[in-house]
Amino acid sequence: MSFRATVLTLFPEMFPGPLGHSLAGRALESGIWTLDCVNIRNFGLGRHRAVDDTPFGGGAGMVMRPDVIDAAIASVRDERQLIALTPRGAPLTQARVRDLAAGGGAILLCGRYEGFDQRVLDANGAEEISVGDYVLSGGEIAALALLDAAIRLLPGVMGAADSAAEESFAEPLLEYPHFTRPAEWRGRAVPETLLSGHHQAVADWRRAEAETITRARRPDLWARYIASQPARP
Amino acid sequence: MSFRATVLTLFPEMFPGPLGHSLAGRALESGIWTLDCVNIRNFGLGRHRAVDDTPFGGGAGMVMRPDVIDAAIASVRDERQLIALTPRGAPLTQARVRDLAAGGGAILLCGRYEGFDQRVLDANGAEEISVGDYVLSGGEIAALALLDAAIRLLPGVMGAADSAAEESFAEPLLEYPHFTRPAEWRGRAVPETLLSGHHQAVADWRRAEAETITRARRPDLWARYIASQPARP
Repeated sequence: MSFRATVLTLFPEMFPGPLGHSLAGRALESGIWTLDCVNIRNFGLGRHRAVDDTPFGGGAGMVMRPDVIDAAIASVRDERQLIALTPRGAPLTQARVRDLAAGGGAILLCGRYEGFDQRVLDANGAEEISVGDYVLSGGEIAALALLDAAIRLLPGVMGAADSAAEESFAEPLLEYPHFTRPAEWRGRAVPETLLSGHHQAVADWRRAEAETITRARRPDLWARYIASQPARP
Repeated sequence: MSFRATVLTLFPEMFPGPLGHSLAGRALESGIWTLDCVNIRNFGLGRHRAVDDTPFGGGAGMVMRPDVIDAAIASVRDERQLIALTPRGAPLTQARVRDLAAGGGAILLCGRYEGFDQRVLDANGAEEISVGDYVLSGGEIAALALLDAAIRLLPGVMGAADSAAEESFAEPLLEYPHFTRPAEWRGRAVPETLLSGHHQAVADWRRAEAETITRARRPDLWARYIASQPARP
């Protein structure tokens, strides 16, 4: 059974975009996932097919109308999760990506950044997801990121050699640094432990490096990691 | 002076992709920003133009070679910031996006997810940036997200009406909910305050909503917000 992605957007020409190449592109061609785009404009009102209007209470920008968005959603709604990409949403995590990849697909709602009328998200039980604490010009690139993250986890997309590596963020640590040939480059040598052939020493070194970089760069992840460790006697 | 983006990637065909449409696409056509892609494969070694090799210390996946990546960087290096997109990086923030947009451009280094040999990032003083705590199949969609966020802030890209709205994440609060016509939809009314015409009441309501949603969804942002407030007497 394929993973079915349906994207509701004003810019269907942005899809599959980068997902038409490389891993995701090959998986799309071979039917591991499918992609449908629905142009929200088709559900616009009046001669100009208006999809937005000014915000109640005033302010800059336009807000996407609840009746228009609702009609677009209704045209594709089924048992799949409905996800609205918005900076107000819950931050996307690798755990959520894994859950999505294990399901049958998703309906992704992409808005312009001023956002949707909140009632249409509430009425449809939309899951609001954010891909990061920055502002994009619309939900489309966020949808591409979410789909890319999910698709690479679908069975048959990554080779066996890659699969083991998918466990980044399985625990809340950043990855240890990587090194490959040449062993000496511009006077910079690969850390000796990695050349030692002692598996335990390599594993210990990598964990120590992952802990060091996480502590330095991501106090938020570090706090979660510490809390997740069994108490030491 | 244009904002100049140079992308180093194994998949130049992914660009401009979604950035060729809508706001970013029009800005690209009108020369507000420029885009060059360099195929890392051109700097590969031997008959097969190899760009990666197995990791020292063992493990799944391949690591991009320092000599190959260094040659690709050297071919375009100038005074612009060199940014490597990697989940080990510092999380992208709107403040960082604003700084980038205010500069002359950036060189973006996109790897496959197993990552770069760390030495080439260190030797080149690369800034490591992550767009979120999930694993993508490569840095390309992360680069698209970063560029989209920066381009919309360039002078002339957004209309005057939109510009004021760019201050999302100016302070660490999620946005308040938006509402537009119709005022009553499926038995759901727009909050009365927004229809009152009292500007201060609207502003107070929006701030209270922004605080409520931030507290509920993002304890991390909430803690930062509380810390940033002047002490109340």
